[in-house]
Amino acid sequence: MASEFELINFLFEPLSKGLSASEIGIGDDGAVLNVPEDHQLVVVTDTLVSGVHFPESTSSYDVAWKAVAVNLSDLAAMGAAPGFYSLALTIPDSNQSWLTGFAKGLADIGNFYGIPLIGGDTTNGPLTITVTAQGWVPKGKAVTRSGAQVGDVICVTNCIGDGALGLMVALNTLPEMVHKELSSADIQHLLDALNLPKPQLALSEGLREYATSAIDISDGLLADLSHVLEESNKPVSSVEERLVAEVYLENIPLSQAATIYIDKTQDWLAILTGGDDYQLCLTISEANFEQAKSMADKVGVKLTDIGRMASSLEFNGEGTALEQVTNDQVVLLKDGKEVNIEGTKGYMHF
Amino acid sequence: MASEFELINFLFEPLSKGLSASEIGIGDDGAVLNVPEDHQLVVVTDTLVSGVHFPESTSSYDVAWKAVAVNLSDLAAMGAAPGFYSLALTIPDSNQSWLTGFAKGLADIGNFYGIPLIGGDTTNGPLTITVTAQGWVPKGKAVTRSGAQVGDVICVTNCIGDGALGLMVALNTLPEMVHKELSSADIQHLLDALNLPKPQLALSEGLREYATSAIDISDGLLADLSHVLEESNKPVSSVEERLVAEVYLENIPLSQAATIYIDKTQDWLAILTGGDDYQLCLTISEANFEQAKSMADKVGVKLTDIGRMASSLEFNGEGTALEQVTNDQVVLLKDGKEVNIEGTKGYMHF
Repeated sequence: MASEFELINFLFEPLSKGLSASEIGIGDDGAVLNVPEDHQLVVVTDTLVSGVHFPESTSSYDVAWKAVAVNLSDLAAMGAAPGFYSLALTIPDSNQSWLTGFAKGLADIGNFYGIPLIGGDTTNGPLTITVTAQGWVPKGKAVTRSGAQVGDVICVTNCIGDGALGLMVALNTLPEMVHKELSSADIQHLLDALNLPKPQLALSEGLREYATSAIDISDGLLADLSHVLEESNKPVSSVEERLVAEVYLENIPLSQAATIYIDKTQDWLAILTGGDDYQLCLTISEANFEQAKSMADKVGVKLTDIGRMASSLEFNGEGTALEQVTNDQVVLLKDGKEVNIEGTKGYMHF
Repeated sequence: MASEFELINFLFEPLSKGLSASEIGIGDDGAVLNVPEDHQLVVVTDTLVSGVHFPESTSSYDVAWKAVAVNLSDLAAMGAAPGFYSLALTIPDSNQSWLTGFAKGLADIGNFYGIPLIGGDTTNGPLTITVTAQGWVPKGKAVTRSGAQVGDVICVTNCIGDGALGLMVALNTLPEMVHKELSSADIQHLLDALNLPKPQLALSEGLREYATSAIDISDGLLADLSHVLEESNKPVSSVEERLVAEVYLENIPLSQAATIYIDKTQDWLAILTGGDDYQLCLTISEANFEQAKSMADKVGVKLTDIGRMASSLEFNGEGTALEQVTNDQVVLLKDGKEVNIEGTKGYMHF
């Protein structure tokens, strides 16, 4: 009978395939990787804690997929191409079937996005998974949160809110009046959005060409958009003029399931602050938006115009006096009128 | 009153100083780092779990120092120069004083070794700290576990066993007959070895020049030396001839405190398998050893010859028949005679 750690070695070592002969993956004090010329290194880290970031009932396959996916989503938001990742896995105890499922999840997402595992650390303790992923951008071409400009189109990839609704399905908190309207395909779509998010890496190159700023939507669209405002307003630091994000509620792209949810509940709060989207929120100059949209179409990503970056000096959303426009404000408009949904700022990271 | 995460931002953001204007540290989806020419990237990851890898009573300053130090020790073992690190911090709850102490520990080790924090993730959950550190080696010059040769000197840096004895002090399990012989300076020395290990980065350059293999001693000398055998025996994969490590017990370098401990208890098991040393175990050809030793002296590191890499074909340790030499065997000799201490293999990582 193999020990837990022998089992982990056996299951994880094959995941480092894809490295060249001059590189070193799992099995030494550290991994040794080649560096592409004229590129910068991009490093991202995200931790998932059982019961906090995913329901305890989540399958080990899905936990593994998601732990890697949320990091690849960060790489995508920087306009980076994926390189490799390391894994810090803390497990309370383990059985072969849990670990086998976990390794299969790692293998599948690694193969799908072409990113090998290069090492890590396995420890005993409450289930916690930290992935650190590395990627590459051509020198000086990283897309940051800080480049949004007045007049830019605010846009998002694919649909918003499905991850948050997926969590309601998983936790059995989706209102019955919604649940009974959803097909089993809708339900599966929501669960997949929660458990098996697809990072938008296909867009990395287009991002570098067109986006003035980008962020990965993990905390909820409103919280993440306010991070963009925060960073984009920093260099200016003018108290008189600041960026304000106008978001048109009727433009928010919703899946069939989320459309039914909104029809029945009008609960935009869940859609816009629930998080777990792993879509991208971009700003693109109006002049470039149509071109960017057709480029995205070509790689199978739907890009939807959901608002504009306005200036606090010119902003005249009905019902909002200028003095009410505070720092880093996202203003929601419905048919041109400001609407208020009780907002939270979601999870905050440093 | 600042929120926990605002406090973390406030405390951690200054730790990313040291990056150039073309680099990005904390505050975006990922960090963006410059890459030195003609180098390879080295990536290491280690997790510390409260109550598993350090006593729950450990100060937050010491936890922070150790979490970074154990990773820098891995970089040192690869012959790498430190680059930067990211931090995944899971905390159950927090108070300003705990976080302030933690940030101070990060700041001090960061300044000491010149390694900035480039980002991370803070989550709520049981106290767990994962650091992923990046470093650089000249192309093809990484020192691995796999290069040990028959005839090589086995040597270690500084003293062995102090971390394990420090843990006994911290847990109040150090035998009274030892404790009463130790000065308060001895006690502090042991606690510092446990809580504030000093990674041997000063030796990185010398390692690349002289060492045929290297490993960081975290699991205990015997376990880590057997990892070197395991990896160095792999390429040969001859069932007839394998490397055997002969270790001379009387050569193991001990601090004053550890000398007293051995005098009183003869408990070599604690010294050789307790782990938490964060010293390096190297193999160096006999021809190069004296030169390597004087190079180490110059950077303030004591290098001690503790044994030889022997061939299983020629091995004739008294009392050991050839057929008893199993794979990846470390043989302990005292005054030329084989001794047996009940060994464990320590913690195992993948």
